[in-house]
Amino acid sequence: MSEPAVSAALARFIAGCRWADVPAATRHEAKRALVNYFAVALAGCDDPDVARARAMLARFSGPAQAGLVGRAERLDLLSAAALNAMAANVHDFDDTHLPTIIHPTAPVAAALFALAETRPVSGERWLLAFVLGVEVSCRLGLAVGAEHYRRGWHITATCGVFGAAVAVASVLGLDQAAIVGALGNASAQACGLVETLGSGAKSLGVGNAARNGVLSALLAAEGFHGPAAPLEGERGFLPVFGQPGDARPLLDGLGQQWALAANTYKPYPCGVVLNPVIEACLALHAEAPIAPEQVERIELHGHPLLRQRTDRPGITTGRAAQVSAQHAVAVSLVDGLAGLAQFSDAAVAQPRLRALYPRLVFHDDPSAPVEAARVRVLLSNGQWREHFVSAAQGSLQRPLSDQALEQKLHTLAGAFDSGPLLAALWAFDLSSEASAPMRLARPLSDKDSA
Amino acid sequence: MSEPAVSAALARFIAGCRWADVPAATRHEAKRALVNYFAVALAGCDDPDVARARAMLARFSGPAQAGLVGRAERLDLLSAAALNAMAANVHDFDDTHLPTIIHPTAPVAAALFALAETRPVSGERWLLAFVLGVEVSCRLGLAVGAEHYRRGWHITATCGVFGAAVAVASVLGLDQAAIVGALGNASAQACGLVETLGSGAKSLGVGNAARNGVLSALLAAEGFHGPAAPLEGERGFLPVFGQPGDARPLLDGLGQQWALAANTYKPYPCGVVLNPVIEACLALHAEAPIAPEQVERIELHGHPLLRQRTDRPGITTGRAAQVSAQHAVAVSLVDGLAGLAQFSDAAVAQPRLRALYPRLVFHDDPSAPVEAARVRVLLSNGQWREHFVSAAQGSLQRPLSDQALEQKLHTLAGAFDSGPLLAALWAFDLSSEASAPMRLARPLSDKDSA
Repeated sequence: MSEPAVSAALARFIAGCRWADVPAATRHEAKRALVNYFAVALAGCDDPDVARARAMLARFSGPAQAGLVGRAERLDLLSAAALNAMAANVHDFDDTHLPTIIHPTAPVAAALFALAETRPVSGERWLLAFVLGVEVSCRLGLAVGAEHYRRGWHITATCGVFGAAVAVASVLGLDQAAIVGALGNASAQACGLVETLGSGAKSLGVGNAARNGVLSALLAAEGFHGPAAPLEGERGFLPVFGQPGDARPLLDGLGQQWALAANTYKPYPCGVVLNPVIEACLALHAEAPIAPEQVERIELHGHPLLRQRTDRPGITTGRAAQVSAQHAVAVSLVDGLAGLAQFSDAAVAQPRLRALYPRLVFHDDPSAPVEAARVRVLLSNGQWREHFVSAAQGSLQRPLSDQALEQKLHTLAGAFDSGPLLAALWAFDLSSEASAPMRLARPLSDKDSA
Repeated sequence: MSEPAVSAALARFIAGCRWADVPAATRHEAKRALVNYFAVALAGCDDPDVARARAMLARFSGPAQAGLVGRAERLDLLSAAALNAMAANVHDFDDTHLPTIIHPTAPVAAALFALAETRPVSGERWLLAFVLGVEVSCRLGLAVGAEHYRRGWHITATCGVFGAAVAVASVLGLDQAAIVGALGNASAQACGLVETLGSGAKSLGVGNAARNGVLSALLAAEGFHGPAAPLEGERGFLPVFGQPGDARPLLDGLGQQWALAANTYKPYPCGVVLNPVIEACLALHAEAPIAPEQVERIELHGHPLLRQRTDRPGITTGRAAQVSAQHAVAVSLVDGLAGLAQFSDAAVAQPRLRALYPRLVFHDDPSAPVEAARVRVLLSNGQWREHFVSAAQGSLQRPLSDQALEQKLHTLAGAFDSGPLLAALWAFDLSSEASAPMRLARPLSDKDSA
């Protein structure tokens, strides 16, 4: 490799960074990421695959060291980290670092909260570690490049294990050499395949990222290390998972540009390219409802990526519906809603929606930005209805407001009272006890009978 | 991908294979692999990195479900599987499937023994599962090709997780669909980098292969699945970790040719290419001892791979010495021994051996077989000493005899009485209780005081 000591330089930055070095906007973005994290983890904690994984890991779990978001059980630190990361990511409703399409928060936050339940950690210290973990995940994603994801690596998992490792290393106060050790331990455990998206197995990769990140740092603290150059070494993470010689994005502007600045939150539980489409359909519905039997044809004008990623008329499951333009358009246009319930197996089974699937026609416009879309509906009376979105809510141009994030948390929390949790998160940097949000994300033990 | 339903075809074979289908030679080879497994696990269980991992996992371990080779502790099934695989592989003294350089037994045997301690399994059923697990690991290794290892994948770990998953699936009696599910769960967890060899992190990959293989199969039994085509899918294991379109070695001759037929066992704790070199040096020493100060020059004539893999005069640790021709030649020539003690940090620190390192000269001979080597020693009195080995012990042409394997077990077991364990292994197919060897590989609790 051309760049000398890339791992060491990264570790030096991690070891030396202080909360005072983190700009105010990044600090606030970290809290926003946490509001979103608890929202999606509360929504995901009862997913059937997450429940299966929870029942399985409980059979092998050690002491009740750490809690699960939205659940009363406590498991050992490693298992709790894995299960919370799974819950937060299972619906792909978590945050998205747009330049890499990494969902950065789930592995890092799950790892850090589990650790924070086993030792005293302040909110400030926790947040610094979180910012650094997200930074490392996303910078590694940039360094391995777009080819990494295209080839088939589930980048949230493959890079997430390093983010979780570095975050935990930061809280533990490891020095530069030990952080390189933690990166090396993580490098032996980086895994996750795009092929598994849409199946339970996806969650194993994401859960492992959190669990093995914790393990990597804890082992490094005990002198159990990896190689000297785990990232840039001849057969290290970067050349094996990416292309040789592309380590620059890992270090350029470190401490000046922050990955969280490019982090976004989804208003709908769908692939991000569908954001403007759904927004346009909801606007058309709000203007005047459209009955399915009125619809002759629906035109979708957008960047070719929209068609390439979401032209899926043959879907049969709610999970597949999350990346199907046919279903997203049908349900948001007809029902005027686009929440988790609209992307369930039951929603997909409705004949009145399915009847619309074949009426969708894509119109590629390579000059259109990915965050824009135009939806045109031809009614049976010959009338055209049309709506254009130039930059969807949830894009970098029109980020979800703090209020919209709060609403997302309240909605996904369901019957659970998320008010105290929300208050704790906005004031997290002032808290002396970083485990507090986990306590507030836990239902009262008598909740079911209340 | 060109081949339809590769994962399904492999799973069908696993689900349908019976002990009666396994030829006698393969059955016996499975037992030989186990004798070697316990030998190397007994030697490796007190390695400092394995001890660190054990102390760490014990902090998070659940119920005492399964034992550790050579140790009194019992941990939860998953942790025990991980730690035993680490112990068996840590010295790279375990078996080698020559066509792939996979160490196949450690992940598969560790996974299966842990499972066998939690439910009734017969020796025959265990052995069938073991044969199938090794088969799948090695065939996947062939399918991803030599480029897989060259690029930097630690093939023992990346392919081992599938072998462990399939082996456990076989014992659980999973049907074809569930075995595909287990392969999918394994695909999300395949990991391990060559860069980590020589560091503690290597053991994380190998330990994960065993642990996550068990988890993959147990989850599949509960309906937690991966994608439909985890191996041959567009972004499945084969195209992502190998080259597209090379799935044929996975299925060709399935049930006719068995991977265990190409399995070998090391007489010395070194890279296999050093086998003939060490054998020649030991023969020279046995003929007549050679004092280091007598040695003017040592010539090594062999296949270029010998030089490429082992020309390491600058080593400073015992672990690095295992792949250093300079050290292997020096210690075996001067001391007439080549056991674990000869490849320790202490052995490498000896000036009388180090003085010989710069006197070694390689002579490449591309026409020489890899299992052959000629060692020539020029003494200060002008005399030449010379020994040629056409096929080293431990090669496929001259496999380690059953007796030599027994001796390896007794030697590596040290003070531990391995007699009863050995007897149990040779009669393992007749045993009604597959957990028996683990009980016999455990020191008596009063051993230290006895």
